[in-house]
Amino acid sequence: MITVPTLLLDENICRRNIKLMADKARRNNIILRPHFKTHQSHEIGNWFRDEGTEKITVSSLRMAQYFARDRWKDILVAFPVNILEIETINQLAATIHLSLLVESVDTVMFLQQHLKSAVTAYIKVDTGLHRTGVTWDDHKTISEILGSIGRSGMISFTGFLTHAGNSYKSRNIVEIKKVHEESKSRMVSLKEHFINEYPGLKISIGDTPSCSTMEDFGLIDEIRPGNYVFYDATQTIIGSCSLEQVAVAMACPVVAVHKERNEIVIYGGSVHFASDTVMDKDGTTIYGKVVRNDGIGWGRVIEGAYLKKLSQEHGIVSVPGNVINDYKPGDIIRILPVHSCTTANLMKEYVTVTGKKISMM
Amino acid sequence: MITVPTLLLDENICRRNIKLMADKARRNNIILRPHFKTHQSHEIGNWFRDEGTEKITVSSLRMAQYFARDRWKDILVAFPVNILEIETINQLAATIHLSLLVESVDTVMFLQQHLKSAVTAYIKVDTGLHRTGVTWDDHKTISEILGSIGRSGMISFTGFLTHAGNSYKSRNIVEIKKVHEESKSRMVSLKEHFINEYPGLKISIGDTPSCSTMEDFGLIDEIRPGNYVFYDATQTIIGSCSLEQVAVAMACPVVAVHKERNEIVIYGGSVHFASDTVMDKDGTTIYGKVVRNDGIGWGRVIEGAYLKKLSQEHGIVSVPGNVINDYKPGDIIRILPVHSCTTANLMKEYVTVTGKKISMM
Repeated sequence: MITVPTLLLDENICRRNIKLMADKARRNNIILRPHFKTHQSHEIGNWFRDEGTEKITVSSLRMAQYFARDRWKDILVAFPVNILEIETINQLAATIHLSLLVESVDTVMFLQQHLKSAVTAYIKVDTGLHRTGVTWDDHKTISEILGSIGRSGMISFTGFLTHAGNSYKSRNIVEIKKVHEESKSRMVSLKEHFINEYPGLKISIGDTPSCSTMEDFGLIDEIRPGNYVFYDATQTIIGSCSLEQVAVAMACPVVAVHKERNEIVIYGGSVHFASDTVMDKDGTTIYGKVVRNDGIGWGRVIEGAYLKKLSQEHGIVSVPGNVINDYKPGDIIRILPVHSCTTANLMKEYVTVTGKKISMM
Repeated sequence: MITVPTLLLDENICRRNIKLMADKARRNNIILRPHFKTHQSHEIGNWFRDEGTEKITVSSLRMAQYFARDRWKDILVAFPVNILEIETINQLAATIHLSLLVESVDTVMFLQQHLKSAVTAYIKVDTGLHRTGVTWDDHKTISEILGSIGRSGMISFTGFLTHAGNSYKSRNIVEIKKVHEESKSRMVSLKEHFINEYPGLKISIGDTPSCSTMEDFGLIDEIRPGNYVFYDATQTIIGSCSLEQVAVAMACPVVAVHKERNEIVIYGGSVHFASDTVMDKDGTTIYGKVVRNDGIGWGRVIEGAYLKKLSQEHGIVSVPGNVINDYKPGDIIRILPVHSCTTANLMKEYVTVTGKKISMM
């Protein structure tokens, strides 16, 4: 019985999401190296194993250690090397095939001086997000980094990696396609420029919107989507998935009903959902979408009902006037989170629709 | 040595914040029932004991259980009763003086039917925030709730409680005062209306901006501020405190420097800071304020430097052009969080400036 905010997981939907992406990678003959930062769970990791996954991506060394403990042997830490953590890097490199992300000669030189076991490295390339990485057409800097990798004995060059996170601003497939094509063509031009010198080099892209909706990956060698394991309200708005593909929902107790303003107060705040927002199709800024909880699944959104505001433990749900009388204190209300990665990170546990608890890192 | 994102705590500043508020309460002859949701720590709780605190506020039953385990005997759960957690309520009510928050006759009746030990209750009053509670001048509803409490054997009425959280929108003391005076006068009018019938009734207010800056509490009986234990960047912008009063700062490794756009990439993202933002005095939306880390304390903000963007693990710090050359990968950058409550909730541990680790719930 649910008595406190709970992160529900539909295992069937989740496994289907995992399978669909694995099928797509096989169909296109590209490597799927899924990002495990979304689920952060040994058990869910095993569902990827069932689909043949052997290579994974994580966002921190701590997460790499967590998955290394569960027999994952080929892990990419898709975050610029933090040289202060060289000890952890060495511990991991001694036991698994560790891939790192570099974007400066200084970092490569530091690694070369301090590594005790071999690692492979991707060069992080900025194809338009402007978060981090070397600008895609800055061949001079890229050549310098390649040179320093070449002179190192401990680091082998894998290829170029980008994250076209600007696809998250898309609101339909045409917009996703635009970001994807631009990012892809920039990565391909880089591959073509350096392939003669580095015949084995791979190019790797990552974002869930592109990987979910696009079919043409051209010369791309590897994809690293993560969020698609669950999807969320944002991905339904971007157009990456249908409502029926969202695999997680928050279940929150109703603690007060304010009919005079068509608002429901729930137990479920920013320490449960995180504070991520998204603009819904109608221009409203929301913290989550309210779905029906009669019957199986939670694909049926209640039109006009949304999570409007969050305090530390409170959430305010706004509902249409014709729906407010359906709720009373003690009821459970189900909400699709805006960003499943940060919600899962806070909740630290899943409860499947059959009542099984699944732990996280 | 700091190698990963770390929440630094200056014990001296923190203890001074605790003492200043305790002194103010004593001076005004009002009860201080500090909110412990900000620090969520047994050890920091003890620093309040050193200042004579015996009554505390928490935001969940789980937090009440955590502090009850450390000998706190008088705990108010300042969150509308979640009737689904009646079992936990009964466990707590059997061992401590438990105060609950009610705002409907239905909840009072439910409690009366299911309570196994006596509790005290505050009625939650809405004095302008419109988050939850009975509207302050809705005497009819309040009388009905009072009637149902009166007929119950298990619940004693303590008084009226409000949280003037709208003070968080203030940007100077004049604006805080306006919110405080309005909220106070509404609470006082309520007290005056019901005091003859309920001679012992108390009125309780809560927000850190008012409690930190106001001196005249009039007929207020109790204050419940929480954030003041640490303060944060938001409170400095509101005007609740000076920069020197902020007791926590995030220390984050620099992983990349992008001179071409005056940006520094840090290891420290939304899973460390939370995603709260605030508008700084100059109109910029920020996720944190960058401070100097040479020497003791972190009161000296670097003008024009701020945490601009967060991904799950990355943070982007924007700095003025004349400062960018001061940073290189492997450095530590210190940042005052926008909202210390949610940052602490994610970090789960403090490290004091003398290197002592302090655990949390």
